Amino acid sequence: MEQDEKEIFGWFVFNSGQLLIVKDSEGKYHIPYGQEPPVTVPVGSTVHTIGEIYGHTAKAYAIYSPVPGNEDSEMMMKDLRASYDVLPFEEYYRAGKASQILNWDKNSRYCPMCGVPTVQVSPIAKRCPECRQEFYPRISPAVIVLIKKEDKVLLVHAKNFRGQYKGLVAGFLEAGETLEECIRREVMEETELTIKNLRYFGSQPWPYPSGIMIGFIADYESGTIKLQDEELSAGEFYSRDNMPEIPKKLSIARQMIDAWLEGKV
Amino acid sequence: MEQDEKEIFGWFVFNSGQLLIVKDSEGKYHIPYGQEPPVTVPVGSTVHTIGEIYGHTAKAYAIYSPVPGNEDSEMMMKDLRASYDVLPFEEYYRAGKASQILNWDKNSRYCPMCGVPTVQVSPIAKRCPECRQEFYPRISPAVIVLIKKEDKVLLVHAKNFRGQYKGLVAGFLEAGETLEECIRREVMEETELTIKNLRYFGSQPWPYPSGIMIGFIADYESGTIKLQDEELSAGEFYSRDNMPEIPKKLSIARQMIDAWLEGKV
Repeated sequence: MEQDEKEIFGWFVFNSGQLLIVKDSEGKYHIPYGQEPPVTVPVGSTVHTIGEIYGHTAKAYAIYSPVPGNEDSEMMMKDLRASYDVLPFEEYYRAGKASQILNWDKNSRYCPMCGVPTVQVSPIAKRCPECRQEFYPRISPAVIVLIKKEDKVLLVHAKNFRGQYKGLVAGFLEAGETLEECIRREVMEETELTIKNLRYFGSQPWPYPSGIMIGFIADYESGTIKLQDEELSAGEFYSRDNMPEIPKKLSIARQMIDAWLEGKV
Repeated sequence: MEQDEKEIFGWFVFNSGQLLIVKDSEGKYHIPYGQEPPVTVPVGSTVHTIGEIYGHTAKAYAIYSPVPGNEDSEMMMKDLRASYDVLPFEEYYRAGKASQILNWDKNSRYCPMCGVPTVQVSPIAKRCPECRQEFYPRISPAVIVLIKKEDKVLLVHAKNFRGQYKGLVAGFLEAGETLEECIRREVMEETELTIKNLRYFGSQPWPYPSGIMIGFIADYESGTIKLQDEELSAGEFYSRDNMPEIPKKLSIARQMIDAWLEGKV
């Protein structure tokens, strides 16, 4: 880039979990790119730098009301999860990070020890002027487990699922436990089953609002399914020829179930 | 336990990262057990229930000045890390959870969105009376990696290590990345090496002050070591017959290095 050229940025603009996207002349969706913010940056909204997107510096900021638009418009707001279906994967993935940084910005305005307003001191750090404590974007670790029993897999419906599909047992890590202890505890709490032979599958940032999902495969050991009514509304072992609706492609749950369907795990 | 018996609790009493321990008649150290708190609970200090220890309900609270004592006394304060050397493992492990809960209690007095005082609503949840947001103990995910090159292992000295030993490359997960991306980024930032064949080793709660360490083994791929001066003061590949001082037994770093020394990874 020459000195007198102006830099082109990639813009991640959010309103309450909805991302601003634009339609190009071929009808394909992207985030907006340009020298200037695509819509006015509201007073009091910070423009964050969040790395790169396709060789451009990526910027993110929040707006306080949605940009009007629909599928016939050049611009529209799209729920972050649903944006997976229309955006290039790279943009969806980076939008997740942008969403987490904006969420952190909103959730770190005051020092939780002192109650005084914090000051941003770096792209991912704020500081309390009183106690000098620094605050970084919070990432909540969670585990998710695919449990095999002979030629079947355990699929459950959690009440907080967005849709009627059946997925995998998952839960947040608690203080003082390993990932493995967390998985055994969650499986026991939610189904009363015991499991064995835990093996790591992979991990996925999960920006809803700010987690990391850590996936494991396990074998059924003992017990009869008894669902925890507060969290689960259904759960049983399914064979490959009798599968219910499963999670969408964007989730690690789906990647794990697909790997099992293909006999890879 | 009969109705008229009084319950015996296990007590985790902390002052600034130092745990109260007691010496029994055989000279062995334990946490205190009893019906009543072993020292006065200060006004404003909450007694937290944090699960079980040896069949007793475990309680934890903070005191604002240390209990006087030394190795000749019946009671003394011991740094949590150092308590690993003298306490039964079960008590050390549970003390880590207690420390994280107390740390969370101190760090969640005010709503970071609204700045108003929070209210504790369950053993591990506080709520903002204004915005109704709930706050749970924060666990920061971090990765740690053992890198093999032929018959050698990469050991580094980070400036924040407590001691002169050499350990493994480690770092905190950032928003929007997988564990695997985090490891590659940290290794590149700290040493300029690239790695391949990442495989999961295990995980360990790391209550200093509130993390989960997630360990991986990897193979050297390419590059020449160039240390990031801000974080590392030494780093090179060591063979089994030429090992420097390594981390203490309590850490997953040591477990990983021991597994490598024994040819298990």
